[in-house]
Amino acid sequence: MSGSAHPMDGEGELSAADMSSPRQTNTPFVHKVEVPPKQSLFNEFMYTFKETFFHDDPLRHFKDQSLSKKLMLGLQSVFPVSEWGLKYNLKMFRGDFIAGLTIASLCIPQDIGYSKLAGLNPKYGLYSSFVPPLVYAFMGSSRDIAIGPVAVVSLLLGTLLRAEIDPTTSPNEYLRLAFTATFFAGVTQVTLGFFRLGFLIDFLSHAAVVGFMGGAAITIALQQLKGFLGIKKFTKKTSIVAVFQSVFSSAPHGVKNNSVFSTVSFTFSISSHVCHCLQWNWQTILISISFLIFLLVCKFIGKKSKKLFWIPAVAPLLSVIISTFFVYITRADRKGVKIVNHLDKGINPSSLRLIYFSGDYLAKGIRIGVVSGMVALTEAVAIGRSFAAKKDYQIDGNKEMVALGAMNVIGSMTSCYVATGSFSRSAVNFVAGCQTAVSNIIMSMVVLLTLLFLTPLFKYTPNAILAAIIINAVIPLIDVNAAVLIFKIDKLDFVACMGAFLGVIFASVEIGLLISVGISFAKILLQVTRPRTAILGKIPRTSVYRNIHQYPEATMVPGVMIIRVDSAIYFSNSNYVRERIQRWLIDEEEKVKAVSLPNIQFLIIEMSPVTDIDTSGIHALEDLYKSLQKRDIQLVLANPGPLVIDKLHVSNFADMLGYDKIFLTVAEAVNSCCPKQSDEV
Amino acid sequence: MSGSAHPMDGEGELSAADMSSPRQTNTPFVHKVEVPPKQSLFNEFMYTFKETFFHDDPLRHFKDQSLSKKLMLGLQSVFPVSEWGLKYNLKMFRGDFIAGLTIASLCIPQDIGYSKLAGLNPKYGLYSSFVPPLVYAFMGSSRDIAIGPVAVVSLLLGTLLRAEIDPTTSPNEYLRLAFTATFFAGVTQVTLGFFRLGFLIDFLSHAAVVGFMGGAAITIALQQLKGFLGIKKFTKKTSIVAVFQSVFSSAPHGVKNNSVFSTVSFTFSISSHVCHCLQWNWQTILISISFLIFLLVCKFIGKKSKKLFWIPAVAPLLSVIISTFFVYITRADRKGVKIVNHLDKGINPSSLRLIYFSGDYLAKGIRIGVVSGMVALTEAVAIGRSFAAKKDYQIDGNKEMVALGAMNVIGSMTSCYVATGSFSRSAVNFVAGCQTAVSNIIMSMVVLLTLLFLTPLFKYTPNAILAAIIINAVIPLIDVNAAVLIFKIDKLDFVACMGAFLGVIFASVEIGLLISVGISFAKILLQVTRPRTAILGKIPRTSVYRNIHQYPEATMVPGVMIIRVDSAIYFSNSNYVRERIQRWLIDEEEKVKAVSLPNIQFLIIEMSPVTDIDTSGIHALEDLYKSLQKRDIQLVLANPGPLVIDKLHVSNFADMLGYDKIFLTVAEAVNSCCPKQSDEV
Repeated sequence: MSGSAHPMDGEGELSAADMSSPRQTNTPFVHKVEVPPKQSLFNEFMYTFKETFFHDDPLRHFKDQSLSKKLMLGLQSVFPVSEWGLKYNLKMFRGDFIAGLTIASLCIPQDIGYSKLAGLNPKYGLYSSFVPPLVYAFMGSSRDIAIGPVAVVSLLLGTLLRAEIDPTTSPNEYLRLAFTATFFAGVTQVTLGFFRLGFLIDFLSHAAVVGFMGGAAITIALQQLKGFLGIKKFTKKTSIVAVFQSVFSSAPHGVKNNSVFSTVSFTFSISSHVCHCLQWNWQTILISISFLIFLLVCKFIGKKSKKLFWIPAVAPLLSVIISTFFVYITRADRKGVKIVNHLDKGINPSSLRLIYFSGDYLAKGIRIGVVSGMVALTEAVAIGRSFAAKKDYQIDGNKEMVALGAMNVIGSMTSCYVATGSFSRSAVNFVAGCQTAVSNIIMSMVVLLTLLFLTPLFKYTPNAILAAIIINAVIPLIDVNAAVLIFKIDKLDFVACMGAFLGVIFASVEIGLLISVGISFAKILLQVTRPRTAILGKIPRTSVYRNIHQYPEATMVPGVMIIRVDSAIYFSNSNYVRERIQRWLIDEEEKVKAVSLPNIQFLIIEMSPVTDIDTSGIHALEDLYKSLQKRDIQLVLANPGPLVIDKLHVSNFADMLGYDKIFLTVAEAVNSCCPKQSDEV
Repeated sequence: MSGSAHPMDGEGELSAADMSSPRQTNTPFVHKVEVPPKQSLFNEFMYTFKETFFHDDPLRHFKDQSLSKKLMLGLQSVFPVSEWGLKYNLKMFRGDFIAGLTIASLCIPQDIGYSKLAGLNPKYGLYSSFVPPLVYAFMGSSRDIAIGPVAVVSLLLGTLLRAEIDPTTSPNEYLRLAFTATFFAGVTQVTLGFFRLGFLIDFLSHAAVVGFMGGAAITIALQQLKGFLGIKKFTKKTSIVAVFQSVFSSAPHGVKNNSVFSTVSFTFSISSHVCHCLQWNWQTILISISFLIFLLVCKFIGKKSKKLFWIPAVAPLLSVIISTFFVYITRADRKGVKIVNHLDKGINPSSLRLIYFSGDYLAKGIRIGVVSGMVALTEAVAIGRSFAAKKDYQIDGNKEMVALGAMNVIGSMTSCYVATGSFSRSAVNFVAGCQTAVSNIIMSMVVLLTLLFLTPLFKYTPNAILAAIIINAVIPLIDVNAAVLIFKIDKLDFVACMGAFLGVIFASVEIGLLISVGISFAKILLQVTRPRTAILGKIPRTSVYRNIHQYPEATMVPGVMIIRVDSAIYFSNSNYVRERIQRWLIDEEEKVKAVSLPNIQFLIIEMSPVTDIDTSGIHALEDLYKSLQKRDIQLVLANPGPLVIDKLHVSNFADMLGYDKIFLTVAEAVNSCCPKQSDEV
């Protein structure tokens, strides 16, 4: 800044605040824009590196501590249980015990149903509610999350696995690939967390997740029609078209032979299908519908009074018990009501040897694992964050990922498939008054007891009741209010949301996921290629300059054009920014000519929002400067930030422009351009 | 804004400018932050659409014109020649004529050499300097660009083609694939331009282009060692390792059998290779070196005096003439000096039937065409823009792409391969005083005459001279100064630059291109995931609040923390922004405790640079608000922009926060938080 025409002398500077004072002269003192102290290359790199990967400063507690304390803190950071475990007391246990029992009663029927979504035997769902919650309780930092298999991940995993192996013809390979995928899902999660790449999951936008979840919920509900209606032959595809085709061609006579026709004319032919519906299993439908109504009524009661939260929470288990008893008494299974049948007794066997570490299936397992691991993370981290915000404690997303990953890696070796945090059960856990991850341990113990002693009791449980429970469980995932809010706030977000939703419903979960990631990326690219610019005007009787489209009373200064660029100027937008500024200028010149106002002599660029600039950006400024010079318009900059002024300095653009053309505020810049303006304040 | 506690009454508001006036009270009047007039969904969409695809308002001239005038303007926009052609005069022709002759003398030897880089017969290079410049002259809008084959695109095309087909064993398929690629390069360019997707090429950052060009220049120069040294057997790979291996194993005896060893120990064994060097063709080396020195001296002279620009421009042709004559006299070709040999006479034959429109090679042609078309565009658009800036005229990038694409599509049907704007020849064209695209027509005519009558004369032209000319031509592409400037300005840009450079040199042009695009994207992602935040302080004796790291004299207001967020808050950064703000707060609270200053009671977020916010961003603000409430800290917003205030309003966050907590300026916000602060101004 040695070239500054107005050196900072420590006193006598005027500012936006006192420009209207009588001391004002034609050549006012102005503040210089300071070049920040030069950072060494290493410091600069370390700063960027830290903000990128360690922005939450995870090692802050380790500073200035003795070695033993550091070891202690290190242990606590890997196993948070060693921190809160010391403060644990009986009162907390009471809360955790009740919450644990509640979520256990909710998870057992859900697990059995979800494992079917994943194309696995029901026992694997129960296994996955035993080991992973235990691991999480020791390593996880969320106090409210309930761990276990969840609907969406089960569906995704099932879809991806079925695309590779048919579970009916090669059940063994299918199971092995499932464990392989689980292993690599865990490895992906640990890796993302350990290398602090957790921010990658932020690229799946909230809107896309809302759409994806809604679509997945509908797809899951549709899949349940098999159990709900007692259909024997059902499509393996998940698209809504294929499912309806399956449903309406499932009758023994009738539309089977012209199923293409039936789909096309679906809306016109519902009445004609009623007769076929009668050939679905009416006993099954009776059970399904009555218990679905029961579950919905219970949910309604739970919503009315928070104290009655336990009613919807225990309703599923209650339904299972009642319906199982009912089927056992009436032997409805002999009348076509499908039942769970034999369920192995005993705890998780080791599955380490079943994981593919070589061969063709290794690559497939990795691919499926990475995708399902990422989706599982998205769900768990969103839950963790939302409950942490409610109770105001911090969650380290990256550490959380390591915990979730470790639990899936261990899970994959103990016959579990991908587990994560469940929206519905975590909410129940929270309402039931959980205090720590001990509620997960309680749940896990209940599941253990079930595995050891109670599995034979599920033999007569009708599949229909599981279908009803799952339909009831996934309904809240269809978040219409969130979609409406997204529509109101951001139309492009809504497009992402609907794209994901429709993609999942009409194509497949993979396509929906691809669409949502694609649109999210497109939005980012749009943001960086087409930043906003605004014309600023002076708000009357102030020296504040604001967007004239937001503040219609703001007036432009004659002969001066003030443009604010609302983004860092990078290669991706430098040409656009330059051309846009030139177009604003041409438009304005035309207007000015039309009403014979003075010609534009100064172009002030308000740089406050321009946080950074790169070589392309500086070239764009140079081109702009040269082009303005030819038209006798002076370029003036206001309030460049630390990085920008530094780079303008290094690249000699500041010398070319002149340091006396760089001001601290727009008001000072305007003042220097046409001093009389200040008199009107 | 109906909920505003301080309605705008048209007078009596205080501002940053007069807050220090005696009218100041404890409950000052403040400006309200205005919600901009609500736009209809359609208008909003049209605005975004227009800014994304039609930001340069290409149809502005068509407004309020009669139909015949509109037709006329439409014609002019597709064929700019119909606009400037009318004003063309003899004086302009004089400039164009001289410039045209100069670039013709430069392009003929270059064309012959470049077509070898592409693995094609030299005549195709000349063909490509005949048709495409003619087409461009009618459709293009740049007045300075010189059209024809260029080194980098020829190399890229050659590399990509050779990866698919061996030109020595299947020369016919190779040629056909070359035309197919050229056709699809043209189609790509037209498509990008027509659908106004030209901004996509901006994703190849300036830094990446500098590195890529430098690497390509070195690779091209290395490839010339074949002709330069008269080596018969030469590698088909372009990496520096493979080339040196080729060069030093090219001797008939010696290292051939342990070439791997020779590469590894390359640096240690140069001396032992001198003997083999003698077995390269010394006559060839003599010609190469002497003429390379001649060319370099001419270039030096041209640089010293701008009036002598023609010396370096005609030097190549002169060298060709002299050396050809010399070889013809001495019959040096019988002594191992390789010559061009027979060159077909006659103008471009049709090649429409040679293009693959089906079969296996179609997909390969499309892929190669897209890649080389994009790279060709990058070069042409950069040249067009830089000369347009020098002469201060506007170039419509998208229209330019349509012109370039049309010229390549037509070229592919007339035996031309991918042509684009050449850096070196365009510079000569500019210096020689070209006025319009007529200089391209002149050049094209000279090439036509050459094709019709002069090709037999090139029979004895030694390949060595072509190598020298190409080496001389690509040296300026190694822009060390630009690389140094990039290093100074932006370290990450420099990484992209060196990544592309080293990728091209040590791997291949494709890898280099991939690396540069990859790093450019990573930079964009970094920008959108990790926006900057800054703590603001009050600059003494003003009410201006600035980054305390840039302005060390700025002081923080006791009990108030002011944080500026320097980016739109989107899903990709909302969590980071929230966590970063919380960390600033924790850090500050610790500092405050240490020196027993008053606790922080207010957190002011300066939203000026926050140009937009989406649903995730609003959720982050809500979470922040809730978490601050638990700590008895009041959240206050300053100067949200039009989009942001609108979305805060729609999402009801503004109601939750209270409209009286949203201020026009930071100064007003601070003033409302601790009124006595203003007394100190």
